Amino acid sequence: MTSAAPSALLTAQELAARLRGVGEERYHHRHPFHLLMHEGKLTRSQLQAWALNRFYYQSQIPVKDALILSRCDDPEFRRRWRKRVVDHDGERAGDGGIERWLRLAEATGLDRERVATAREVLPATRYAVNAYLELVSRKSFLEAVASSLTEMFSRDLIALRMDKLRQHYPWLEGGLAYFEARLTQAPDDARFALDWVTAHATTRAEQELAIGALRAKCDILWAQLDALYFSYVNPGWPPPGAFRMEGA
Amino acid sequence: MTSAAPSALLTAQELAARLRGVGEERYHHRHPFHLLMHEGKLTRSQLQAWALNRFYYQSQIPVKDALILSRCDDPEFRRRWRKRVVDHDGERAGDGGIERWLRLAEATGLDRERVATAREVLPATRYAVNAYLELVSRKSFLEAVASSLTEMFSRDLIALRMDKLRQHYPWLEGGLAYFEARLTQAPDDARFALDWVTAHATTRAEQELAIGALRAKCDILWAQLDALYFSYVNPGWPPPGAFRMEGA
Repeated sequence: MTSAAPSALLTAQELAARLRGVGEERYHHRHPFHLLMHEGKLTRSQLQAWALNRFYYQSQIPVKDALILSRCDDPEFRRRWRKRVVDHDGERAGDGGIERWLRLAEATGLDRERVATAREVLPATRYAVNAYLELVSRKSFLEAVASSLTEMFSRDLIALRMDKLRQHYPWLEGGLAYFEARLTQAPDDARFALDWVTAHATTRAEQELAIGALRAKCDILWAQLDALYFSYVNPGWPPPGAFRMEGA
Repeated sequence: MTSAAPSALLTAQELAARLRGVGEERYHHRHPFHLLMHEGKLTRSQLQAWALNRFYYQSQIPVKDALILSRCDDPEFRRRWRKRVVDHDGERAGDGGIERWLRLAEATGLDRERVATAREVLPATRYAVNAYLELVSRKSFLEAVASSLTEMFSRDLIALRMDKLRQHYPWLEGGLAYFEARLTQAPDDARFALDWVTAHATTRAEQELAIGALRAKCDILWAQLDALYFSYVNPGWPPPGAFRMEGA
């Protein structure tokens, strides 16, 4: 792929534009499951399936970031990146992004223990999330860092989502603290990662690897929503052993 | 899970019955995509999507078996198991299961290079297949071997499939050599693996791990068909970059 690409180094602006182009085309703000959510067309049970599955993704974020930390020899980078582990795990029990996601799941009416065990998560969710762990473990360090650049696009999606959730599912209000925190955390993290990738992708081939890593991460997010849509919207066939909606 | 299970060792017959029970419930012979296939209700383009995606699974089978070989200290086991690598890679170019699958893909009307690059494979297919590689790499050696026990059920499915493919899609006839070979290879491999698992799962906890590994493998096969169904049957939304059916 990269061998066929033109070899001129992109400027920082051109690289940022290419990355934004990937998001425009492939970030999951376009996914039909999110469109239904934002139109208020999901049932409470469908939101439960979403919260329960997405919990597995949330639960693996600090693991993903620890894998990135474990591959880095630079204390300065590590000091900056470890913030992400703190954001998700919190300073103490009852704090942090994972805890806040559990509270969102509770707001949908699910028991927190049921969610926390991740026992009813779709296998496809698990495979996609684990593919993210594989990516940050096995690809180049540059690609591992670049795969986090979906956060360039998450603020806008989260702002829209909070608005739409409040409008269509007001009973979720008590569970929105997760998104509130991400409104400032995500852009902050994205800025650092974009600056780092821009500085460390010093050949066109490396720039293309970074763009490819962002595309791969978008695929991972997209596949999670495909699986939710298939199992809980249309045709609505969760595989054996997975979460089943009430009355389904 | 296993801590709550009764602790009495299962007899060989009981273990085999439990394993067959997993297959009855979760093996992909029950999957709606296969049911459509066997009823003659898939279009040529849908069979192309199936052959193209399933090629990625086929291509990783010798990798999976090499991972198992790499974890084993017993030359006798390795001598027996390496047959699987030979079956798929063949004795020479133009031979073996992967080559025969490419010929099946060609019989659906696809260009073999297009299939062989695996560039248009669904991300979800890739994640599920890679989860199989992870399973045989990271779980216990017993679980790695036990995950192959889906072959206990494959002969019946393949025999039925050959019959139905000939009946409904006679133009596929030239591509059926893959299945012909598997009719004898699979039961042979399954017998060895079942005997080995029966002999080496010497506690009830280990027996439960083996059963769990078979369940995990069934999930991996099932998820591949869920992704095909979602993208190419209903609702029929392949993700960005994946294979698109002609006229779609």
